[in-house]
Amino acid sequence: MVVELISVGTELLLGNIVNTNASYLADKCANLGLNSYYQSVVGDNEERLKSTIAFALSRADIVILSGGLGPTMDDITKEVSAKVLDMALVEDIYTRERIKEHFRGRWSEIPESNWKQALVPEGAKVVENKNGTAPGLILEKDNKIVILLPGPPNELIPMFRDDIVPYLSELVPEIIYSKVAKIIGIGESRVTEIIDDLLRAQTNPTIAPYAKTGEVHLRITAKTTNKEDAIKLIQPITIELKKRFGESLYTFDEDETIEEIIVNQLKMKGLTLTTAESCSAGLLAGRIANVPGVSDVFKEGIVTYSNESKIKHLKVKEETIIKYGAVSEETAKEMAIGGAVFASADVCVAVTGIAGPDGGTEEKPVGLVYIACCIKNELFVKRYNFRGNRQRIREYTVLSALDLVRECIGLMN
Amino acid sequence: MVVELISVGTELLLGNIVNTNASYLADKCANLGLNSYYQSVVGDNEERLKSTIAFALSRADIVILSGGLGPTMDDITKEVSAKVLDMALVEDIYTRERIKEHFRGRWSEIPESNWKQALVPEGAKVVENKNGTAPGLILEKDNKIVILLPGPPNELIPMFRDDIVPYLSELVPEIIYSKVAKIIGIGESRVTEIIDDLLRAQTNPTIAPYAKTGEVHLRITAKTTNKEDAIKLIQPITIELKKRFGESLYTFDEDETIEEIIVNQLKMKGLTLTTAESCSAGLLAGRIANVPGVSDVFKEGIVTYSNESKIKHLKVKEETIIKYGAVSEETAKEMAIGGAVFASADVCVAVTGIAGPDGGTEEKPVGLVYIACCIKNELFVKRYNFRGNRQRIREYTVLSALDLVRECIGLMN
Repeated sequence: MVVELISVGTELLLGNIVNTNASYLADKCANLGLNSYYQSVVGDNEERLKSTIAFALSRADIVILSGGLGPTMDDITKEVSAKVLDMALVEDIYTRERIKEHFRGRWSEIPESNWKQALVPEGAKVVENKNGTAPGLILEKDNKIVILLPGPPNELIPMFRDDIVPYLSELVPEIIYSKVAKIIGIGESRVTEIIDDLLRAQTNPTIAPYAKTGEVHLRITAKTTNKEDAIKLIQPITIELKKRFGESLYTFDEDETIEEIIVNQLKMKGLTLTTAESCSAGLLAGRIANVPGVSDVFKEGIVTYSNESKIKHLKVKEETIIKYGAVSEETAKEMAIGGAVFASADVCVAVTGIAGPDGGTEEKPVGLVYIACCIKNELFVKRYNFRGNRQRIREYTVLSALDLVRECIGLMN
Repeated sequence: MVVELISVGTELLLGNIVNTNASYLADKCANLGLNSYYQSVVGDNEERLKSTIAFALSRADIVILSGGLGPTMDDITKEVSAKVLDMALVEDIYTRERIKEHFRGRWSEIPESNWKQALVPEGAKVVENKNGTAPGLILEKDNKIVILLPGPPNELIPMFRDDIVPYLSELVPEIIYSKVAKIIGIGESRVTEIIDDLLRAQTNPTIAPYAKTGEVHLRITAKTTNKEDAIKLIQPITIELKKRFGESLYTFDEDETIEEIIVNQLKMKGLTLTTAESCSAGLLAGRIANVPGVSDVFKEGIVTYSNESKIKHLKVKEETIIKYGAVSEETAKEMAIGGAVFASADVCVAVTGIAGPDGGTEEKPVGLVYIACCIKNELFVKRYNFRGNRQRIREYTVLSALDLVRECIGLMN
């Protein structure tokens, strides 16, 4: 079955708000096994809304509208939907009572405009709104379904989750099950080349690549009648992907982040971690401390932005900086060693680079970054050339540092 | 003139990502004085994309597409747009060179698929992508304009701001001129209460409030035929707002951030700044170092996550932590004093708090944060109770620390 989403509201057309309802509804519909080919946004304008609904009904089985159910004159989604489906509006006693209930003790008088919310298209299924006055509505006619939802996310989400999902589940016999392979340190085009044959051959499960900052995620989605079959369908793909991407593929769990994996690795191996940052200036430490309970393994970190600071706290040799520069393999290494000593930590990851926009030279351009990792008595260092603006270079630096730390910890027994 | 936005990408239809590009573009187009009646989302499917573009062209003067310009087989926006406009694809030498440049030193070989990005519709204006390989494109034909933008926001936003906005401005006779009043430390409902009369009376200029993390932005927009008139229209509002919000209103410049203001203040007063962070764990330092050229005033910072680290590096007294706790006014103060000494800096801002989800108690709940600022021989400290999850608490902590630093520096002569 095909679903189409229509978001109603001039504030969306003006860019005053981000359309999080659409992504929420799209995600839930995809998980229900509904196909979706189009989404639209339209303002609170009768003619334009009418034609948008009619057009959506011409190409989808189910049309879900959100927004425009409020009490003001502007709110016309219900009225226009009723017109398109040629249904009369009648008063719904239950909703009238709910409105009375909602306002009890809040106003001496109920604003006149709110009574309009008690009108519903004749024959509609009325869906209770636990968090507002506008009820949801399900309209069924001529084998088409139109679902009307209130716009505020705190009303739409619980209503959709509690009442609309069970309703839609009964219409769809199939279930959708997916896993996400998260790959770090390989660009999107290279990833798709590596799995070109899998992408070409995909039917069920499907494989869809998404580029994230410094990562590529592959969503593997199976469509079956039960979860066990779905897992069986997905398993050979996950094995094959792991074989092709090795350590670069760091999880199949959609909710797991690379910093969580690092913190768990550290806990398992009984190691502590510290950071010594120049160009990333705290963002790396901040990212690691995203993980709740990180305090067991991360006690402290230092931001040494100036040369003096690198020399004073990390004991980087002045000669090293003079001879090789602050952005060099040698300085990165000494920072990592000095950082581990400074913080009495088992592992230190050190970062030095040129985030720009100034400070680049022919020999050492903006985007040149060295990352070193000192772990017990071993030392690893990598050179990177990142492109883009200051922010992007710093983001990629953080991700690459996390990747290097994970790799180095993985090498330890 | 009428503009219509089309966002291309199966990941949008599946709800895997939120369509922030649409709200960004819609906002910028509205500010340019362009009218917008519809937005659509469509997947990477030739037939459906073709009909969506053709339909948009039938009802708008300008169609802006985002996404689907990447190197993979899935990416077909350029090819389909060229087909709809009946334009041939030809190789763009400049883009070919840019791709070579982009990959230089990163891979031994450029992935074959990337060369497809060098093809452009004949006669297209090629817009440089400073943050990726896919160039933007402006196609003009039969009094219609089709603009193609890359999907990743870190590529789309700078390209739109730097190249597309100037291009579109020339097409619109009326000019839209706006200033943004950035207010920190006051909630949205309180802000709108304070200017309720102004919001009710607005015509030209208009005033639109937007809630950001820890900030409220008021966009004041005038529509006139020339910039001088617009400035005259806006001026009385800016004076009134400054009168009502005082120091909480920190800039009228849309591009100016609070960290830039702090860095400029420090430079003007010849002061250096350092950070001593517990719960924010580097995010504050990282935010300050967003500012290019920050190295003149920010030399180093420290993340003291554990008590031992606070005692060892910041000379916080063990008795203080035992008596008052690590999250206390007293500890925050000692961290600020110790941090200034540690880094030999004129100003130190110190942060200690409970970001959660664990670690809260009845007396000291999750969200309790103390921020202290030591500046020369003076000491300021504030207590905050933030709501929300770990990430939100840490974001609000950083913003509040920046606000406190700004306030303290402002007090110095």
